Amino acid sequence: MSLVVVGSVAYDGVETPHGRVDRMLGGAATYISLASGYFTQTSLVAVVGDDFAQDDTQLLLDHGIDLEGLERVTGKTFFWAGKYTPDMNDRITLTTDLNVFANFQPKLPPRYLSEPYLLLGNIQPGLQRQVRAQMKHLRLAGGDTMNFWIKDFREELLATIREWDFLLINDAEARMLSGHENLKKAASAILAMGPHTLVIKRGEYGAMLFRKDSFFVVPGYLLETVFDPTGAGDCFAGGFIGYLAQQGFDLKADHISRGELSRAVIYGSVMGSFCCERFGVERFRTLERKEIDARFDEFVKFTSF
Amino acid sequence: MSLVVVGSVAYDGVETPHGRVDRMLGGAATYISLASGYFTQTSLVAVVGDDFAQDDTQLLLDHGIDLEGLERVTGKTFFWAGKYTPDMNDRITLTTDLNVFANFQPKLPPRYLSEPYLLLGNIQPGLQRQVRAQMKHLRLAGGDTMNFWIKDFREELLATIREWDFLLINDAEARMLSGHENLKKAASAILAMGPHTLVIKRGEYGAMLFRKDSFFVVPGYLLETVFDPTGAGDCFAGGFIGYLAQQGFDLKADHISRGELSRAVIYGSVMGSFCCERFGVERFRTLERKEIDARFDEFVKFTSF
Repeated sequence: MSLVVVGSVAYDGVETPHGRVDRMLGGAATYISLASGYFTQTSLVAVVGDDFAQDDTQLLLDHGIDLEGLERVTGKTFFWAGKYTPDMNDRITLTTDLNVFANFQPKLPPRYLSEPYLLLGNIQPGLQRQVRAQMKHLRLAGGDTMNFWIKDFREELLATIREWDFLLINDAEARMLSGHENLKKAASAILAMGPHTLVIKRGEYGAMLFRKDSFFVVPGYLLETVFDPTGAGDCFAGGFIGYLAQQGFDLKADHISRGELSRAVIYGSVMGSFCCERFGVERFRTLERKEIDARFDEFVKFTSF
Repeated sequence: MSLVVVGSVAYDGVETPHGRVDRMLGGAATYISLASGYFTQTSLVAVVGDDFAQDDTQLLLDHGIDLEGLERVTGKTFFWAGKYTPDMNDRITLTTDLNVFANFQPKLPPRYLSEPYLLLGNIQPGLQRQVRAQMKHLRLAGGDTMNFWIKDFREELLATIREWDFLLINDAEARMLSGHENLKKAASAILAMGPHTLVIKRGEYGAMLFRKDSFFVVPGYLLETVFDPTGAGDCFAGGFIGYLAQQGFDLKADHISRGELSRAVIYGSVMGSFCCERFGVERFRTLERKEIDARFDEFVKFTSF
């Protein structure tokens, strides 16, 4: 079952307590696709400049990602640089050069329009809405957003997520969007905004899935060393939707399975944890599906009682 | 199976975003005993002043707590006051009047000396060590400590915990004690200091249990409203050791069960969560054992996949 991923493909400069890389492949849609590609056929919709390296294109192709929707235009690829705090739970942005991403208008190749799964990475809500509106055969659609859109594009964002099946955000965003400090109250308020399912990512503390009448909470995976948390939340999203797509899951159907959704949260957590083990997308150069399933089994082991 | 709890009994003044109480029953040993009392016969060793109210004595007696070890001396009971930050994950201390607690020398009634379970609340490590040395028939002993002892009484603390089966601390304390930011590394370092078992409490984010070759992680219970987190970590400790004592658990024996330890962590989490539902010890005035078991079942439900 095929998944369409829309969002940013970028170059990142990252500094963490474990080192520094001045320029490497990044962007939300890159991480989402690399993660989802382990589970399901993934098609990427994004824009890059003419500086986008052949090696980076090849990495995506090697992961079976369909790049017909990856537009190449004259100019430079989106560049972001940031530095993490010592505990790596926070970061400051040093540089944001939108470059060709500033005028991004997602263009979906016609054959993408009938795909059943859609993951909208964090971009301007109006663009997310336009993409959603073009896809008429969706079984499951949802995405991510961020503080900037919640604060300054609230009405547009609300109109956008009203049409989503699921919203994937972090705890600070959930508090900001809902106006509630308490996450249980925040979740109830957000579920009333449209999505049937809300996933709140809490970084090293794990993730929570809320539906109207149930919720599921999983702690984070304990890594010996977190090299670079960049992209972990996006890899979570990729693992989550990738697993559901692989299962042929249909959130709208009567046979909604809380068990499947919980396992999707675990696969999301697994993918996020692998992402942190190396800088940028490095871990995905060698990661194999059997390692993913082995880590899923570890989750079973360290959370069951 | 009987449990001896040693620590502070105090009066607290607490301000949270939900209200303010100028003076109410508190103290680590109070919370530990109230929680453990739901699981096992508990004996309290502490000191209070002549201002200690009969109502407060009665509350402890009503929970079946043996007070022969509760010394009453001339002077005022330990008083602490603090104010929580808006998210309640941190607090500032406004007042610490040690009063009669400044000269606390734990005195164990002779019949306590042969009890099998010991929980040492957060007091001066040398005193914890003296108590531990007096008890010759222990099946399980451990306790809590805090940043002040880790920083300024390090050698004494290390000599003390070397003789413990388990140590229960929070994540900041684990980092400080071990010198490692990463909790997995911190846990390995601390397990090399003596205790076979380490429990790291993470407040709203849950708790982790580490042993040499395994670990267990549980997320926190999601409350709609956290009225007052004061005492939640101590109630966790009381639920943890109380459950193990009720089961007749022996950490030194060959039949160490990881399952029992995990369930003890859940019961600890359950007791900590109830504590937060009202100010101070209020929730324990009405809490019934069947509510505790129902919440344990909720944990099963929202963490299984």
